[in-house]
Amino acid sequence: MAKINHNFDNLVPNYLFADVSRKTSEFIKANPDRRIIKLGIGDVTLPLAPIVVEAMKHGCDELGKKETFKGYPDYEGYEFARQAVSNYYKSFGVEVSADEILINDGAKSDTSNIGDIFSQDNVVLVTDPVYPVYVDANIMGGRKIIYADCTEENGFCPMPNKEVHADIIYLCSPNNPTGACLNREQLKAWVDYAISNNAVIIYDSAYEAFITQEEYPRSIFEIDGARRCAIEMCSLSKTAGFTGTRCGYTVIPKELTVDDTNLYKLWYRRLSTKFNGVSYPVQCGLKAVFSEEGLKQIKENLSYYQENAKIIADTMTECGIKFTGGINSPYIWFKCPNGMGSWEFFDYMLNQIGVVGTPGEGFGKNGAGWFRLTSFGDRQNTIDAMKLFKQLINNK
Amino acid sequence: MAKINHNFDNLVPNYLFADVSRKTSEFIKANPDRRIIKLGIGDVTLPLAPIVVEAMKHGCDELGKKETFKGYPDYEGYEFARQAVSNYYKSFGVEVSADEILINDGAKSDTSNIGDIFSQDNVVLVTDPVYPVYVDANIMGGRKIIYADCTEENGFCPMPNKEVHADIIYLCSPNNPTGACLNREQLKAWVDYAISNNAVIIYDSAYEAFITQEEYPRSIFEIDGARRCAIEMCSLSKTAGFTGTRCGYTVIPKELTVDDTNLYKLWYRRLSTKFNGVSYPVQCGLKAVFSEEGLKQIKENLSYYQENAKIIADTMTECGIKFTGGINSPYIWFKCPNGMGSWEFFDYMLNQIGVVGTPGEGFGKNGAGWFRLTSFGDRQNTIDAMKLFKQLINNK
Repeated sequence: MAKINHNFDNLVPNYLFADVSRKTSEFIKANPDRRIIKLGIGDVTLPLAPIVVEAMKHGCDELGKKETFKGYPDYEGYEFARQAVSNYYKSFGVEVSADEILINDGAKSDTSNIGDIFSQDNVVLVTDPVYPVYVDANIMGGRKIIYADCTEENGFCPMPNKEVHADIIYLCSPNNPTGACLNREQLKAWVDYAISNNAVIIYDSAYEAFITQEEYPRSIFEIDGARRCAIEMCSLSKTAGFTGTRCGYTVIPKELTVDDTNLYKLWYRRLSTKFNGVSYPVQCGLKAVFSEEGLKQIKENLSYYQENAKIIADTMTECGIKFTGGINSPYIWFKCPNGMGSWEFFDYMLNQIGVVGTPGEGFGKNGAGWFRLTSFGDRQNTIDAMKLFKQLINNK
Repeated sequence: MAKINHNFDNLVPNYLFADVSRKTSEFIKANPDRRIIKLGIGDVTLPLAPIVVEAMKHGCDELGKKETFKGYPDYEGYEFARQAVSNYYKSFGVEVSADEILINDGAKSDTSNIGDIFSQDNVVLVTDPVYPVYVDANIMGGRKIIYADCTEENGFCPMPNKEVHADIIYLCSPNNPTGACLNREQLKAWVDYAISNNAVIIYDSAYEAFITQEEYPRSIFEIDGARRCAIEMCSLSKTAGFTGTRCGYTVIPKELTVDDTNLYKLWYRRLSTKFNGVSYPVQCGLKAVFSEEGLKQIKENLSYYQENAKIIADTMTECGIKFTGGINSPYIWFKCPNGMGSWEFFDYMLNQIGVVGTPGEGFGKNGAGWFRLTSFGDRQNTIDAMKLFKQLINNK
């Protein structure tokens, strides 16, 4: 009899977004005339930059002519795409060569599929709260998971505990959901910890484009030693609005070796067996993002979201509410006022002012009593929601 | 210390295409004036149909406008895309509902990643010769692999051996590399075998669009009982020249249950954790393929390849060489003349007439002494190569 992977039985059902959606729908049904503003959304809303659209359309046209038709892409992505990413890294001072870069269809695929090259017999360290993909993918893979607590006390930037051993470490900075950023010193501590444990760091830099303050690294490869212990994965989803376009990149330093095995070669072997590369027009779009004009155009969208984030962060400051993120991040993670629980505050805010966000406890036990808002909404909605929020808090 | 997945150590390096490429390059270097015709290629060469290009470009334009922008796609694909596939199935008499269809980025990804939902403790049956992905992906997953011999005697269509137990069965029909097709009776025998073993068939129908003869099923779901034991995976790579565009589809019947677990739900759980859907413009392209006009346009390319295949097959017939494929398949799999070995014949054909093909033994031990040519080349090259082939064989 075919036997399923019973590690799936250990997945804890997480109905966070389903519950948010159901509660919101019920409220709308019961209050059809009330205005609802959704600031829980993790998806972008602004369109692709014009230069990206043109590049993708040009790519489609090339596929439509015999002389310029493209068949199977290279597993690791076209050289032109990898070179564009390499140049982008260079623009903020990081040397990563094109042959250390692999084009992916989004950071989610690679942060989860990377488990294929690791034994089941590894201890995986993640933060709590956490982006659920790291946890669920490793539960499916049958690995033991341990947690580093992110709390108000450590500013949601946990430091490694030398008493605890881990083999694989997932870090996401700027963080989803907390918006907290690791500075160079903090990240260096993790790199040192990884090296002393012969561990590998899977570094998710999906939100690096939101970093505006110099003291925060945009790549783990800004840190000494990272090339000996880290794999970095990034996505254009938030950088350039590629959530529906699907493209990103993974960086594996050529010299990175664990368990006497070169990880680039191992991952390439996995890719060449289980993947056939990213769509050609999409890779043309990636190249356009990282052109001079492309970077200018995507900056407009990024600035829009950053301004939304600032509006929300400023509101929290004005209301005297503790929060992380808002700067260097599209997420604002704040402490529910008056000791309310995450879901209690969700209901309260929805009922009182019609604003929808995401209860923090959906991301892990340390999220209890915390709440996430995002900057990916419409500007006027964000302004209006924050006006209502201030009234709500001040009238209490 | 991070430990790698040492199942990778069990992969047998297969340098088939690398060796073909190296030998060809060396020959060209030594004989710069000789004309070389490559008929080993497994990639398509004709461009996308105009209606597909237009649909994809329209999709890109939509991503470039706020009103029509699309964020994260549904994990299983857009309803419009799944409905288009469902209608396509209906056009040849197979009822598969849109909610049993999942859009993928090519059959390779899904035929290999499907292992995620199965225990390591399954016996996997593949044919020999075989598309190497099924083997390598399951070696990486640590599963035991057994082989069903495809031989001249069984016309490269092996029947199940009731004495042998398997849990997961990979079938590809029309077959890569042999071009052999399972007829309804043969496929029914496999379905019955799977049901009696409580096994699951992973049915790769990537070449179904090449079937022209009524007696061969285009989907395993033409067979009674298949909905209780089979998952079908298909790709537009060969159907519509999508090798560089990357799109296909997977069908999991809603009622398919093994080990007390619904497989659609299990696979969906895997997808939602480790995948974020297929690029929107690409899905628009898929929809266009399956429109009335789209089917007309892709038929032109298919006919071109089918005519190439016929030219090669007719040549084999004229030369009295045993072969499979050519009809209902883009591949022609023939017995090397005069008892030559696969590589011996490769060298002989390259040296004598400058034609490059693929030695059969690269696909498994039963491929020894056999050879693969493909119909994806240029028409005139195919004609010229076959003229030279005839001279070569007749002059011997």
